Amino acid sequence: MTVQASPVIDLVLLQKIANTIRFLSADGVQKAKSGHPGLPMGCAEIATVLLTKFLRLDPADPKWSNRDRFILSAGHGSMLLYSMLSLAGYIPAEELQKFRQLHSMTPGHPEVDDVPGVDMTAGPLAAGFSSAVGMALAERIMAEMYNTPKYEVTEHYTYVLMGDGCHMEGLSQEAASFAGHNKLGKLIAIYDDNEISIEGSTNLAFTENVNARYEALNWHVQDIDGHDMAAIENAITEAKKETKRPSLIVAHTIIGKGAPHKQGTSHAHGEPLGEEEVLAAKQAMNWPEEKFYIPAEVKAFFEQKKAEWAENRAVWDKMLAEYDSKHRKIAKEFMRVTSGQLPLQWKNATPDFPAGESMSTRVAGGKAMNAFGAVLPELIGGSADLEPSTKTCIKTGDYPDYIAPGMFLGRNLHFGVREHAMGGIVNGMALHGGIIPFGATFMVFHDYMRAPVRLSALMKQRSLWVYTHDSIFVGEDGPTHQPVEHLAAMRCIPRLNVWRPCDANETAYAWQHALARTDGPTAFALSRQNLPVLDRTHYAPAKDTLKGGYIIEYDPEGKAEIILIASGSEVHLAIEVANILREAGRIVRIVSMPCIEVFKEQAEGYRRKIIPKRFKKRVVIEAGVIQGWEGILGDSGIFIGLDDFGVSGPYQELARHFGLVADSIIDKLASADF
Amino acid sequence: MTVQASPVIDLVLLQKIANTIRFLSADGVQKAKSGHPGLPMGCAEIATVLLTKFLRLDPADPKWSNRDRFILSAGHGSMLLYSMLSLAGYIPAEELQKFRQLHSMTPGHPEVDDVPGVDMTAGPLAAGFSSAVGMALAERIMAEMYNTPKYEVTEHYTYVLMGDGCHMEGLSQEAASFAGHNKLGKLIAIYDDNEISIEGSTNLAFTENVNARYEALNWHVQDIDGHDMAAIENAITEAKKETKRPSLIVAHTIIGKGAPHKQGTSHAHGEPLGEEEVLAAKQAMNWPEEKFYIPAEVKAFFEQKKAEWAENRAVWDKMLAEYDSKHRKIAKEFMRVTSGQLPLQWKNATPDFPAGESMSTRVAGGKAMNAFGAVLPELIGGSADLEPSTKTCIKTGDYPDYIAPGMFLGRNLHFGVREHAMGGIVNGMALHGGIIPFGATFMVFHDYMRAPVRLSALMKQRSLWVYTHDSIFVGEDGPTHQPVEHLAAMRCIPRLNVWRPCDANETAYAWQHALARTDGPTAFALSRQNLPVLDRTHYAPAKDTLKGGYIIEYDPEGKAEIILIASGSEVHLAIEVANILREAGRIVRIVSMPCIEVFKEQAEGYRRKIIPKRFKKRVVIEAGVIQGWEGILGDSGIFIGLDDFGVSGPYQELARHFGLVADSIIDKLASADF
Repeated sequence: MTVQASPVIDLVLLQKIANTIRFLSADGVQKAKSGHPGLPMGCAEIATVLLTKFLRLDPADPKWSNRDRFILSAGHGSMLLYSMLSLAGYIPAEELQKFRQLHSMTPGHPEVDDVPGVDMTAGPLAAGFSSAVGMALAERIMAEMYNTPKYEVTEHYTYVLMGDGCHMEGLSQEAASFAGHNKLGKLIAIYDDNEISIEGSTNLAFTENVNARYEALNWHVQDIDGHDMAAIENAITEAKKETKRPSLIVAHTIIGKGAPHKQGTSHAHGEPLGEEEVLAAKQAMNWPEEKFYIPAEVKAFFEQKKAEWAENRAVWDKMLAEYDSKHRKIAKEFMRVTSGQLPLQWKNATPDFPAGESMSTRVAGGKAMNAFGAVLPELIGGSADLEPSTKTCIKTGDYPDYIAPGMFLGRNLHFGVREHAMGGIVNGMALHGGIIPFGATFMVFHDYMRAPVRLSALMKQRSLWVYTHDSIFVGEDGPTHQPVEHLAAMRCIPRLNVWRPCDANETAYAWQHALARTDGPTAFALSRQNLPVLDRTHYAPAKDTLKGGYIIEYDPEGKAEIILIASGSEVHLAIEVANILREAGRIVRIVSMPCIEVFKEQAEGYRRKIIPKRFKKRVVIEAGVIQGWEGILGDSGIFIGLDDFGVSGPYQELARHFGLVADSIIDKLASADF
Repeated sequence: MTVQASPVIDLVLLQKIANTIRFLSADGVQKAKSGHPGLPMGCAEIATVLLTKFLRLDPADPKWSNRDRFILSAGHGSMLLYSMLSLAGYIPAEELQKFRQLHSMTPGHPEVDDVPGVDMTAGPLAAGFSSAVGMALAERIMAEMYNTPKYEVTEHYTYVLMGDGCHMEGLSQEAASFAGHNKLGKLIAIYDDNEISIEGSTNLAFTENVNARYEALNWHVQDIDGHDMAAIENAITEAKKETKRPSLIVAHTIIGKGAPHKQGTSHAHGEPLGEEEVLAAKQAMNWPEEKFYIPAEVKAFFEQKKAEWAENRAVWDKMLAEYDSKHRKIAKEFMRVTSGQLPLQWKNATPDFPAGESMSTRVAGGKAMNAFGAVLPELIGGSADLEPSTKTCIKTGDYPDYIAPGMFLGRNLHFGVREHAMGGIVNGMALHGGIIPFGATFMVFHDYMRAPVRLSALMKQRSLWVYTHDSIFVGEDGPTHQPVEHLAAMRCIPRLNVWRPCDANETAYAWQHALARTDGPTAFALSRQNLPVLDRTHYAPAKDTLKGGYIIEYDPEGKAEIILIASGSEVHLAIEVANILREAGRIVRIVSMPCIEVFKEQAEGYRRKIIPKRFKKRVVIEAGVIQGWEGILGDSGIFIGLDDFGVSGPYQELARHFGLVADSIIDKLASADF
């Protein structure tokens, strides 16, 4: 395999590299007059050891599937990463001088895709750590699925650098507990333990024993001096030797190390040091005053390092070619899934549910996942301890049902009651590549994992969020478990598609759309209660679902007086209301709107055909709050929904209680002169 | 003080009480054909020991300020709590037969206020635990502020029952780390360790060493057999003796204990046992078959217990009267703050900021908090390690600035980087009473604490959420730190008021409104960047802020052609745009809309006066997404804002980049024929 001879580097050169990173970072922050010098200066030695001795990369191909991953979970220390990426040749040195400026490759926090070599958009604390867990998991899954004893096409480490803040966030606890449970031995977390947070000493709020806690979570834990490069190298080597447990290296560092008056204080954390202090630091460390200075021998070292990386990559390419010739089928699949492409004719797997049955869309979703899962081995995910309710287990017979600790063959994961970490881990698997990941829970618990859903949208990842129990029709569990505002809350996230299908066949097409989408995440809102599978010989073809909104039952000759627009379970209520109105001689159009975002992407001509401007009597029915529908309703429309939290009771009674029954709606329309 | 003689109860009676709770719960779930029998049957002995030997209550006055608190963090086991409340006389026994029915006192999950004796609405896992931490903290703060050596008017324990799920949630980690750090010795958590979660054995996903973890968090930890009532009593007694550390009692239980075929399995967790199994359980435990059976001696015991509780309460009342006569001033204040009333003329503290200054609304918010804090000693809170940025420190000089471990006098808390727990703790302090709590962080991190914000609204608590850095004008930190959809996401939460003031004086009135509100929480969206303090001799009086939306600059004779509506920093942009339009001879009205929710509460006449129906040329300007504004915009309006995430760069450049500058808006209006 791609064994890399660790070059002999003398300590003087190593320290020069560290100081290069230290002062590039200090200069970058100073020039921007904004940013965080403390972390990069305190972690310069850690970064140096990682970059020179451990990370296997290919700067010429930043997305190489087998690269080591390096996540800066403490994303505010972005200049550390940019300094590394600049030395390694990912980004031009000039970009360091444009730190935090509009249209630069060096934004305030690391942004994936916008900056080559950045493995993840980080900044919200512990998000990077949780996704690093997902990447380390994906690495093991890919290895199990595609490696052979001779050809280890996936075989890399995942490194993550975290700060005090990452450890204080409960998200990291969830992710660490999951990683320890699952024996993710190739995950190496380095903790920049500088004992300083924004409000002052970490002693003000954070006196737990982190080492003991991680040991309790089944981690391998080491303590080192974070400025001692031999110790750092040794600790990482030990961490690699430990294959059954993830590793935490607690690196005791001095924040802002080098800045004579500010190091070790919160003043070094989140603001430029000041020209004078930068200068004093350079003098104290015997460093030239020149801004953005890179010593010639450092440049020379990285020229050699780049050649070494390229050579290493060539070895892997050669192995892949051999693998391809020896193991045609899995090699093709490996190359397909790592490219993110779907197989030819995968859409043929879209299930077709017979009319007349009664089936919740959560059950239909489970069946759709299984149908697609049969042709897409990359569809892998799990539920936050709710699978018996979310119906999200993929059973193909080709694998064990569930991935288990240290045994990574399977299509399903037990995330435990850890929604937030599930979100981060799903994003990490998506970012890793080779996997189309999903995470499932009750829709109301979107609140626990909103941050990673936002990040999946910001990063344009194909993360799939399966939310069942999508309305007050959860029933007896009551308002704590009844989402009311969650559709609105999800629809306002840019780039996120939110699907709320009305029956089994809309669910199938919603899944098809989500899988086909390569520029962003999708959330599904699925019903707990059974819903009729509509007869598509009478109603519009289910394939129209792909437009986001469509006329599901047409008004003769397009002459509707009233247009009913609904999503999910309320489409059936709209049909009931329409039938009553029609009996009274009214002409009614019914629009099913399973995905407002996709509907809005359609050409204006199409949208105007479905909801013409001249149709003023619009009625939107959705068992949630109005927000998000007002633009579609227009000035004269009527909204039938909720404006407060739900209550506990059998769902049929709640329907009447909240006026979500046909006779009550008919009354409302009459009194509004519709 | 209220020393309570622990009555001698023989073990046979105790076991009868436990079985009463066990089978009332099983019968309740069975009758509802919905719910969770496993926890109540597994925790019947724990509940019995707490109720008979420890809890100091006053069923005649469920809101008695000095009652012991008991939080069922695993809220799905609600029948346990309802069985206890029924025996203790809080709710009629008949209500147990209406479990999970509409309009009953026994909803699916415990709901505060709707059910007397319920201390908190619980269900979202670990939420109850985090708020129990807040209650235990509030108890200590109240004791420090108002107790004298002789009169301990606040002196109670906080008990919380939690399940595996609570421990898996990162929220509990954050809250436990905070509780351990702060030495909350009167917090006693009992862990129903039944080794079963919904997907099966907890071994599937949760193999960490919980005991060792809590020890690492500075907790006192004990292990017991959760069905051995002597052991339970002993452990709670030991926990009470430990005054420097919170206590975790790990009670090993059998889920659904008593059900011969289902106990110890996930089948006992979340569905009725079935008539047959309930019967078999009763037979196995030698219990009468009668449904909702309460033995006469159990009834008699609780009659006696109620007398004892009443006596105990009378002792406290007597002490309070003495305290009142000896310590007039603090006694009056104690009674005022525990009643939730504000002092007479507190509104006189509303600060008046002079025009012409330039001040961010976060700084103005800090000044307003300090002004109100000077007359409201109950205003207490903190920031999630961002106080230097959120500007939320209350300095009165009467107290140390910060509460510190074991030293509970102070007005400010270091929450650490724990937004979610901060939310839960703030809610716990609000629920406890005596405190008006606030929690502060950057607005984008609302995502980390959305669940407790929702709960604060559901529970109608006066929790105050201070969010600074309220838009893309955060600038250089980039899209991970720039809220874009967060105003919409907060506005869709029922009962939550969201204020985004345009200047220092609007900020002051927003604070006044939030403090005066007694039926729900308030969120503030405050700017990072400086904003002019408007001259209110020219613009409308700042007091108009209290209407939620008002005409800040009037069009002569109400003849506006164009109406500009904006919030926060964009009000100043609207003024700039209006001035350009007026120079071109147009008649323009400017509406400042700091709080849409409060504006919508105004009478229709007022609303129509501010935004008349006939004014069709409406322009809304807000540096966020459109969602939430469409209804105000109407069919012909124009929205100036964002429809995607932000980017990193200096904020003035972002303004131009996103078209949030006057000339760009003027162009847009012209091309729309406005």
